[in-house]
Amino acid sequence: MALIVQKFGGTSVGTTERIKNVAARVARTRAAGNDVVVVVSAMAGETNRLVKLAYEIDAQPIGREYDVLLASGEQVAIALLALALDRAGVPARSFLGHQISMITDTTHSRARIESVGSDVLRATLAAGHVAVVAGFQGIDKAGNITTLGRGGSDTTAVALAAALKADVCEIYTDVDGIYTADPNLVRGARKIPRISYEEMLELASLGAKVLQTRSVEFGMKYEVPIHVRSSFDESEGSWVVPEEETMEQVVVRAVTYDRSEARISVLGVPDRPGVAATVFDALADAEIVVDMIIQNASHEHGHTDLTFTVPKESAVEAVSLMEAGSARLGASEVRADTNIAKVSVVGVGMRSHSGVAAKMFRVLSGAGMNIQMITTSEIKISVVIEEAYTELAVRLLHQAFGLDVAPESAA
Amino acid sequence: MALIVQKFGGTSVGTTERIKNVAARVARTRAAGNDVVVVVSAMAGETNRLVKLAYEIDAQPIGREYDVLLASGEQVAIALLALALDRAGVPARSFLGHQISMITDTTHSRARIESVGSDVLRATLAAGHVAVVAGFQGIDKAGNITTLGRGGSDTTAVALAAALKADVCEIYTDVDGIYTADPNLVRGARKIPRISYEEMLELASLGAKVLQTRSVEFGMKYEVPIHVRSSFDESEGSWVVPEEETMEQVVVRAVTYDRSEARISVLGVPDRPGVAATVFDALADAEIVVDMIIQNASHEHGHTDLTFTVPKESAVEAVSLMEAGSARLGASEVRADTNIAKVSVVGVGMRSHSGVAAKMFRVLSGAGMNIQMITTSEIKISVVIEEAYTELAVRLLHQAFGLDVAPESAA
Repeated sequence: MALIVQKFGGTSVGTTERIKNVAARVARTRAAGNDVVVVVSAMAGETNRLVKLAYEIDAQPIGREYDVLLASGEQVAIALLALALDRAGVPARSFLGHQISMITDTTHSRARIESVGSDVLRATLAAGHVAVVAGFQGIDKAGNITTLGRGGSDTTAVALAAALKADVCEIYTDVDGIYTADPNLVRGARKIPRISYEEMLELASLGAKVLQTRSVEFGMKYEVPIHVRSSFDESEGSWVVPEEETMEQVVVRAVTYDRSEARISVLGVPDRPGVAATVFDALADAEIVVDMIIQNASHEHGHTDLTFTVPKESAVEAVSLMEAGSARLGASEVRADTNIAKVSVVGVGMRSHSGVAAKMFRVLSGAGMNIQMITTSEIKISVVIEEAYTELAVRLLHQAFGLDVAPESAA
Repeated sequence: MALIVQKFGGTSVGTTERIKNVAARVARTRAAGNDVVVVVSAMAGETNRLVKLAYEIDAQPIGREYDVLLASGEQVAIALLALALDRAGVPARSFLGHQISMITDTTHSRARIESVGSDVLRATLAAGHVAVVAGFQGIDKAGNITTLGRGGSDTTAVALAAALKADVCEIYTDVDGIYTADPNLVRGARKIPRISYEEMLELASLGAKVLQTRSVEFGMKYEVPIHVRSSFDESEGSWVVPEEETMEQVVVRAVTYDRSEARISVLGVPDRPGVAATVFDALADAEIVVDMIIQNASHEHGHTDLTFTVPKESAVEAVSLMEAGSARLGASEVRADTNIAKVSVVGVGMRSHSGVAAKMFRVLSGAGMNIQMITTSEIKISVVIEEAYTELAVRLLHQAFGLDVAPESAA
């Protein structure tokens, strides 16, 4: 008998019919002899409906009340799922964040989980009930309701699995696993049977939307096996697990892309201490999230170029900020380009295989693409290219690193 | 400076525009130098939407989860009102039942308030904030969410006013007060400026829908002045207050009616101990609420007739139960009549004025109406008549007891 945490997203509970399907699935898991804790998101569309109401009242809703509002969506979902389980003959009890001591910090709308109680849930399971827990929500130490940000229910599920030392945290979604590349883009994309937390973390922060980044961090910290699988069939999905010895045999695990960013260049800034700080303080004050940053080597005359990427929707504001500050900075010009894409390859195998970057650049330049920016970590290489080449770049890299053949033969 | 509890119903917060109007009203009350605690119901239509979802899943939803579901409606409303207040420049904080220790018994869907915390709200007011509290909801001692039944937000408001020793509990509604009769039925119906708790209690349980019965009980117990007034204008409404000396000068305060009941007669039952218990135990087991009960004096042959009223929607079930049990009871016949109405006159003046019942019967019989059942209390007389006569009976009684002229001249 295992203890399984199952998380179902908004689409999986989008109608009462679908909620009944989820109940049937939970019932099967339980009939197989397992203890089950279910985490659910708000019914699809519900969060958007609530957000719309808030913005009808205030374009800048205060965080505390905005979180009270949004948290109601999950409350509806847990109650309905508990009713559906009961109806299906499975005794169930729903729990809100405060009822299971899901304690977070006080950062409304993107709170971080600090601790999770397990007593109530253990007692519920011991009594033979399924526990149905509201995802996405918690309370701070003063008892105010907080929410964890988009995708936060994933983190709720993994945190509960960690607190309960569950055997697995199953994340049910509308795709059936994690792929070597976006299957909509690359015909030969394959499902990855097993992937390390570290690789998944890179993929999540590089634009793959299957799991919230923080949920993977939690999984990694507490070594919770995460099974990403389809809510529509029973097939095996992808397991996110601690790194295994054989994993390094595969050089590149997946190719990913992100078309949501814009590139800003501040040209001819004096190459002296404090310039970068000035630039990025201004952006931070405006709450603009900066992703890649590159500062070129100094020019002859003690000037340099600073290039960074920001979300496309922040590009205009970032340019104004840079232009407003350019006199003070001594910059000669500010340029923005929204027609860019970031393409990345990820794999723990890079640690032990050299020449990955060289191969990547060769493949892209061989197809006539200009590489505008490069950043690397130990297990990933990201490049910025012209947006129009995104699809071609992903396909060529997917093929070049042998991802369209099964790993046994690629290794 | 006064401490005022203001309660707004679902219609008053039915749209974001209306929520802004409520915020403006609260802001005015506060600008006048008062501390304000606001209690709100779910947005109009929201509770019905949630009920529909529940019934799509289970025709007999379990109480615990049903309450979790319904309580979400008030959560949305308090968050939106707090946002609207903040937007209007009035700092506000919303509170759910559990956040202010609104403790009830465990009877889901019609829980009774056992105790209310006041520390959190006092601290909120002391900090210069308006407290916006979710009506209708509480928690039991184990922390399960409970709800107080239809109209429960009235009770929340009066209970908070009692706990905080507020100067007044204002109930904002879509009518502008309590009337001597339903103004839709009786052209000359007048607004009652002041009415005693006891009278209001009778009116509430006799079909007047302005206030939930329990809210009046709470008001009476803790002597909270309740001001029922319109959410659409600033006019004075009706005050529900402890009985005043002058109140007995008016014999009848109001005439009310209720067309929601059916009359069931069980004829020819043996007049021996235990028969009534058998009948009403059966009805109680089926959770059928019995209102009026009359047992006639014994017949010659030791048999009697038992007559009672139940909600119209329970009539068919009540008849089946009686017929099923009639063999055991020894009853000769079961009859039901759904074409009835209960018409009542209420007033503390009845205590000191005799002949009220006689006058009532004379007025009705004078117009050719047959009185089918009669029940009385110290301050009310109710009769059951044929439904078709409802309007006529109310009008005639309203006139006969001088309710269409101002009380000064009627006294």
